[in-house]
Amino acid sequence: MPTAEAITDAVRRYLKAVAGGTAADIAACFAENATLEDPVGSEPHRGRAAIQRFFEPITDARRETELIAIRVASSSAAFHFRVRTERDSQVVEVQPIDVMTFDETGLIVEMRAFWSEADIRLG
Amino acid sequence: MPTAEAITDAVRRYLKAVAGGTAADIAACFAENATLEDPVGSEPHRGRAAIQRFFEPITDARRETELIAIRVASSSAAFHFRVRTERDSQVVEVQPIDVMTFDETGLIVEMRAFWSEADIRLG
Repeated sequence: MPTAEAITDAVRRYLKAVAGGTAADIAACFAENATLEDPVGSEPHRGRAAIQRFFEPITDARRETELIAIRVASSSAAFHFRVRTERDSQVVEVQPIDVMTFDETGLIVEMRAFWSEADIRLG
Repeated sequence: MPTAEAITDAVRRYLKAVAGGTAADIAACFAENATLEDPVGSEPHRGRAAIQRFFEPITDARRETELIAIRVASSSAAFHFRVRTERDSQVVEVQPIDVMTFDETGLIVEMRAFWSEADIRLG
């Protein structure tokens, strides 16, 4: 099981990749057979290739992320964060709560993102 | 599926029961066959009777709860909150992130609490 510190580091790496990386950089935070359900209730994306495709649409936007709060338990973390994208002067900001489970190497094996359209702020 | 408003109300009812109710009041927020994993990684408690027993130890303490942030998705919610207990002048405060899934009547069918001993503050 990864340590609490390793899990927190992995979450920070993920948020850094979401803010400034390519879709491949973000997907590299996930294990080969990971699943991603974003938002919770939607059909999960399965495998690193599908996860990379999921992130491609945001990579042409200017992005910012900020970790608000994180709680680690066992090999999982729940964390509240802010993600802001700006594209053609259109700002979209959401502050989801994500739950991730990690493998022993610190890669994400499952991600579930809790948010809904009501949480989207346009600027 | 319960509405986002019904889910938010159910979370507030739960936190109110944790702050001021009996163990039976808290257990009444859960469905008959609900599971409770607190913290995540520990053996889940199964069924309303076991859940009531789980909450009994806190009911002789003075308690306070506060909802910090909540995100609803589908029939689930993730929320960050503060719970403070005081017993014989010993204050214990934790700010977990919980994930709950609800049935169509707004009862909790699954609760998973993300926190660890490192998050406990003694006062």
